[in-house]
Amino acid sequence: MNIEKLHNELSKDLTKIKELKPMIHHITNYVAMNDSANITIAIGASPIMSFAHGEMEELVSVASTLLINIGTLDEYIIQAMMLALNTAKKNNVPILFDPVGSGATKLRTTTATTIVNEGVDVVKGNQGEILSLLGKEGVVKGVDSKAEIDAEVVREVSQKVKSVVVATGKKDFVTNGKKVYVMANGTDMLGKITASGCMLGSVIASFMAVQKDYLIAAIEGLACYNIAGELAAEKSEGSGSFRQNLIDEIFNITAEKVVDRIKLEEIP
Amino acid sequence: MNIEKLHNELSKDLTKIKELKPMIHHITNYVAMNDSANITIAIGASPIMSFAHGEMEELVSVASTLLINIGTLDEYIIQAMMLALNTAKKNNVPILFDPVGSGATKLRTTTATTIVNEGVDVVKGNQGEILSLLGKEGVVKGVDSKAEIDAEVVREVSQKVKSVVVATGKKDFVTNGKKVYVMANGTDMLGKITASGCMLGSVIASFMAVQKDYLIAAIEGLACYNIAGELAAEKSEGSGSFRQNLIDEIFNITAEKVVDRIKLEEIP
Amino acid sequence: MNIEKLHNELSKDLTKIKELKPMIHHITNYVAMNDSANITIAIGASPIMSFAHGEMEELVSVASTLLINIGTLDEYIIQAMMLALNTAKKNNVPILFDPVGSGATKLRTTTATTIVNEGVDVVKGNQGEILSLLGKEGVVKGVDSKAEIDAEVVREVSQKVKSVVVATGKKDFVTNGKKVYVMANGTDMLGKITASGCMLGSVIASFMAVQKDYLIAAIEGLACYNIAGELAAEKSEGSGSFRQNLIDEIFNITAEKVVDRIKLEEIP
Repeated sequence: MNIEKLHNELSKDLTKIKELKPMIHHITNYVAMNDSANITIAIGASPIMSFAHGEMEELVSVASTLLINIGTLDEYIIQAMMLALNTAKKNNVPILFDPVGSGATKLRTTTATTIVNEGVDVVKGNQGEILSLLGKEGVVKGVDSKAEIDAEVVREVSQKVKSVVVATGKKDFVTNGKKVYVMANGTDMLGKITASGCMLGSVIASFMAVQKDYLIAAIEGLACYNIAGELAAEKSEGSGSFRQNLIDEIFNITAEKVVDRIKLEEIP
Repeated sequence: MNIEKLHNELSKDLTKIKELKPMIHHITNYVAMNDSANITIAIGASPIMSFAHGEMEELVSVASTLLINIGTLDEYIIQAMMLALNTAKKNNVPILFDPVGSGATKLRTTTATTIVNEGVDVVKGNQGEILSLLGKEGVVKGVDSKAEIDAEVVREVSQKVKSVVVATGKKDFVTNGKKVYVMANGTDMLGKITASGCMLGSVIASFMAVQKDYLIAAIEGLACYNIAGELAAEKSEGSGSFRQNLIDEIFNITAEKVVDRIKLEEIP
Repeated sequence: MNIEKLHNELSKDLTKIKELKPMIHHITNYVAMNDSANITIAIGASPIMSFAHGEMEELVSVASTLLINIGTLDEYIIQAMMLALNTAKKNNVPILFDPVGSGATKLRTTTATTIVNEGVDVVKGNQGEILSLLGKEGVVKGVDSKAEIDAEVVREVSQKVKSVVVATGKKDFVTNGKKVYVMANGTDMLGKITASGCMLGSVIASFMAVQKDYLIAAIEGLACYNIAGELAAEKSEGSGSFRQNLIDEIFNITAEKVVDRIKLEEIP
């Protein structure tokens, strides 16, 4: 994945998203719903947010990507996730999973483990959440994990959960279990708004609808999001304006803006 | 409804809303709640958002308008809607209904049909949602209906559901089953943010609290919303800033700004 | 609490919040969740939003403050609040309670009374909500109470509920049952956005995590919030931009900006 290839794929895939307006079915948390819907539209796709059991099969079977995010849970929502997973698998709908808070509570770790065991296509989390999927006791403490991750570990997780893995942090790792990429883009401001990780999930899910190599889709989504973040930070006066500018920058993102700033390396 | 009449009514009704701060009880979806609350305050009314069965009667009986929106459903919320409808009818509280996604899933079509059969005062939806209320099979496909509507059809729906109908699209139709108006205002940017239709519902519901001719209330709300959208689009750099500017423009809307730009025609 | 002391405490406490990033566990309403999360991060703390029974003990036992807000209720959420209260008490986690709408419906008044009877550390509400805690019939009518409060009454409520009380209104009262302070800062624009009171709760809760004299924490939070509001209003064109500017101003608030504008008086 050199810069030229990224430029070509991204150019093509951004255009496809805007043309096809793929339906991204979200089962996500109450805090992020509005932001995730807005950023999904901003990149060009079409969000649906529903956890109603009675319509899950109808909606997920015609979706282009299913996004599952465990940021706020109850029994009903967990069942909705299982129904949705099942329908997605039957209909070959790609699945992005965001294990918010996995490692912080038993409920989240158990739910996350159950979901990755069902089989998903991309797992996106912060480093602590990703580490928790290894099932090693005591790796994560609290919700804001300070755990360090490296190419080795992220590859191990990917092989274990049999999916592309995106581990965000000071640097972001993306792997399909074989190749590992590290990206050094982004801004501290992305940590100053809520639903930041959730919105990244929505952007990656939008690329998964048009790019069948999910390693590439994950890199595209992460690159657009981080670089939109950099551009937004430069013109923001605080976290309130940053949030709005981030959505504006995703709305206006181009392959050119991305390749201009991308810091992407393959780790051997 | 010529321009002069619209100017007079709107002038009077905007002032009334700001003076009376009518309580608009919302049972709406999780994605739109915050935006709908903010736009309701921006136009001058007072939003309440509650689906708690245990307080529905107390709240709805003193509300000035009841707004029901089926954007996210579960059993508890559907029951809350029925309780609210019942209380509104007993207390002569006007009802606006937004059949989000009707036609896209059986759950939504059935819920929408049940609600319009109870009897509501204004139904506001996109063209596909409005068409679905005719109960014709195969009219709508998917959530983003490309169905075309015309004066004839919208009048038919209005007569069938016995309420004022607002059908939004490239052009917007408003009818009371006899007169049909078409409005050519608005901006593509209104399709680039989530909860756009839901917020329109909140604005119309605010006018229903002070204007007892609901055909006029619907035209007033639609005109303010579309023209605030036009003004907001002119100063926005993307969908993030558009959303904020839209609320600013509703906050600052006047009858003068509306009549300056209105493109409204009665269809014979 | 003279200006010099406020300056010193605020300087120290703002720094502490930003260094320690204390976890503020919120059980709050669906409308405010996103705004409350964003303002909590803006002041420097770390929000968690969960009402899942199955993880309540794990999350609340490691939280720095528990915030409970009854803006939207159902059975499950009320039970979650009780679980959270219980855990907070066992673990000496300070509790802020926001009795949204208490006095407006029996469900809310009963729930609020139950919660204050369990014992909380700070109660923050508008004047009508605070008055409703006295249990006097007919004090409050409707949701937007016009009830007037004074130093006497607010002290009475504080002594009755055995907690610090913040009563917001044209002027804001803060008391620990002995001392009563009145603050004349703020802006009408704070009444033009939804979740305004809820966000104030999040800011006070953030101070409670680092300032063990909750009377001081309440004054600090209220002062930062009102003065950020004043600064935001000066550069806003409506309620849409005000909301974003408010979060920017909280993000950039300093002890100096606060003491520059503070209008705080102790009432004998």
